[in-house]
Amino acid sequence: MSSSFEEAALFAEIGKVRGLDEEAMEAARRRQMKLAKPPGSLGKLEELSVQLAGITGKVLNGPMKKRLIVLCADNGVVDEGVASAPRYVTLAQAINMTKGLTGAGVLCAHYGAEIQVVDVGIMAEYDCPKILDRKIVFGTGNIAHEPAMTKKTAIRAVMTGIELAGDAAKDGIGIIGVGEMGIGNTTTSAAVLASLTGQPAELVVGRGGGVNDKGFERKKEIVADAVKRFRPDRNDPLDVLAKVGGLDIAAMTGVFLGAAANRLPVVIDGYISAVAALCAFRLCPRAREYMIPSHKSCEAGYAVAMNELSMKPMLMLDMRLGEGSGCPLVFGIVEAACAVMNNMASFESAGIDDGYLEEIRSEERYTDKGETEI
Amino acid sequence: MSSSFEEAALFAEIGKVRGLDEEAMEAARRRQMKLAKPPGSLGKLEELSVQLAGITGKVLNGPMKKRLIVLCADNGVVDEGVASAPRYVTLAQAINMTKGLTGAGVLCAHYGAEIQVVDVGIMAEYDCPKILDRKIVFGTGNIAHEPAMTKKTAIRAVMTGIELAGDAAKDGIGIIGVGEMGIGNTTTSAAVLASLTGQPAELVVGRGGGVNDKGFERKKEIVADAVKRFRPDRNDPLDVLAKVGGLDIAAMTGVFLGAAANRLPVVIDGYISAVAALCAFRLCPRAREYMIPSHKSCEAGYAVAMNELSMKPMLMLDMRLGEGSGCPLVFGIVEAACAVMNNMASFESAGIDDGYLEEIRSEERYTDKGETEI
Repeated sequence: MSSSFEEAALFAEIGKVRGLDEEAMEAARRRQMKLAKPPGSLGKLEELSVQLAGITGKVLNGPMKKRLIVLCADNGVVDEGVASAPRYVTLAQAINMTKGLTGAGVLCAHYGAEIQVVDVGIMAEYDCPKILDRKIVFGTGNIAHEPAMTKKTAIRAVMTGIELAGDAAKDGIGIIGVGEMGIGNTTTSAAVLASLTGQPAELVVGRGGGVNDKGFERKKEIVADAVKRFRPDRNDPLDVLAKVGGLDIAAMTGVFLGAAANRLPVVIDGYISAVAALCAFRLCPRAREYMIPSHKSCEAGYAVAMNELSMKPMLMLDMRLGEGSGCPLVFGIVEAACAVMNNMASFESAGIDDGYLEEIRSEERYTDKGETEI
Repeated sequence: MSSSFEEAALFAEIGKVRGLDEEAMEAARRRQMKLAKPPGSLGKLEELSVQLAGITGKVLNGPMKKRLIVLCADNGVVDEGVASAPRYVTLAQAINMTKGLTGAGVLCAHYGAEIQVVDVGIMAEYDCPKILDRKIVFGTGNIAHEPAMTKKTAIRAVMTGIELAGDAAKDGIGIIGVGEMGIGNTTTSAAVLASLTGQPAELVVGRGGGVNDKGFERKKEIVADAVKRFRPDRNDPLDVLAKVGGLDIAAMTGVFLGAAANRLPVVIDGYISAVAALCAFRLCPRAREYMIPSHKSCEAGYAVAMNELSMKPMLMLDMRLGEGSGCPLVFGIVEAACAVMNNMASFESAGIDDGYLEEIRSEERYTDKGETEI
């Protein structure tokens, strides 16, 4: 196989992914138990602080440098009228993102996060030095008629994503978000998700940016046909990405994998990001431990993908913009979780006596008799 | 009636509440339509920006001074063993909140919000100048045996909350959050909610801070009995608050009313805050327009109260701490919504031509032909 060398290199990268630091997580849990609140009463904020400890190996984390990586690419399937916007909007919005004027750009600026706009397959020549040029090919094939790309190309896209996560680690970034800009990519995401899960098109296809009725019907038809025609191997996410995916989704998959390999927490945005996260999880189950969900996407397939990941969103904001726009909001939540862990008083320092402490602990059936337990 | 003069004064305050500024909201919607994104794709962030415009009369809002008002009071019903913590924790945590060491305190500091800790009925003498002394009485009656307070006292508590909101307006605060500290107040909240809605105790009583099985059963029993025995008038929230409520809930109700009277957006925290918001809504339906929900509380009755308010939470963080801890997180979301409104590019400035603009508008069935339409 022509892709065997590249595939081996990819799996070597995946092989670098280790599990979370259990000792640090246990120390983080113990610290949470000592803070002046009923155990668990800060819910996800506590869980996030424990997850971060497992990722970084440190109990106290944050504030951290934050980077939203936005993978931009065009999709051949746009020729079929499945999208609400014309193809050139991919490039136009990529350029606008570098100016900080789009939804995600404004939110990143508001939350003090960098935004890294990366061309992994925009179907155009242009001059915009602020877009990081990692173009693999000029867009994908139209999955209504042909596979999106070769497996070798898909692997190159995934490797590109892995490298971007590595660059983030080298740049001292503490948390990554994964977004996208690629007109037509809710169609390809649906095809990938249908392939990976066996779900019918009706359950995974939504209206994306707001396609009309005719386009919506065509979209479902194309997804169902592509899965039937190209028969992607559901046990081989690389085959799925190559046959019915996109360069954006493939590169996003790589960012999730690379984040795990570099021990960086990584935030899932909406539907497309969740599908890429699922591809990464299927390639490397441990990668999931580094992922943090964000907002509930309105797209039909989002719940399917999150269910496969056994994850639940933290934000319900009815957002459907894409671009990674949910990520900066969760950067804010993660930093709030760090603030709680770092700055809350313990029961002892708060002057609440051990009777209350013991009482609420025993009710929650926690033990905290020694440093080595649980 | 002994309370007639006080009641008249309260209803005079309520009479000051006006509806939102429709013209400003319309201008805000028009501006949202011109931003470079599919209309509505930023969901709640867009809705919040429109609501804020309606509240302040200005299209562009934020950054704003933020204040979490935490109403602290003791509840006689704690004698029945319905709470996971002893009564003195109300005062201990109130004092800790002034030091910024509790969950809400840390989150407020993280989000740059003030925290105003107010004693409206702590059952203790103490010396802590940082707690604002608005004590009405030393705690309430035990609703297992007697009404919580007289109607006159309830009205005084509500008026106190209204005054606190007025003080916030005078201090230049731009957004208020409403929290509480009062051991036993999930029991009183459940009794208020059962009274206002006719729902059985099983549907509105939860475990609060984490009461044990025995306490949980007793809690349901007490709520059911109190509603049966004191027969609060479900059409008179003041009667309900007096007979089975608490000084904290009553004062919180006042803050919601006062926020509306002073045209300030006001964030609902969890269960207790939602019950107070419902009391305010029943006293003054327009007050609802000034409210912003925050996180989904784990308490059973939260969904009942939110359903009555026709509201949905924006955050799902499994938090159950109280203290108003969900509010600062939503202050952050509101400021993000302002950033989007204030800083996003319009289609025109983003260089996306009118064809695309018209296309997505017509699909969304919006009209934007003139300044006066819709």
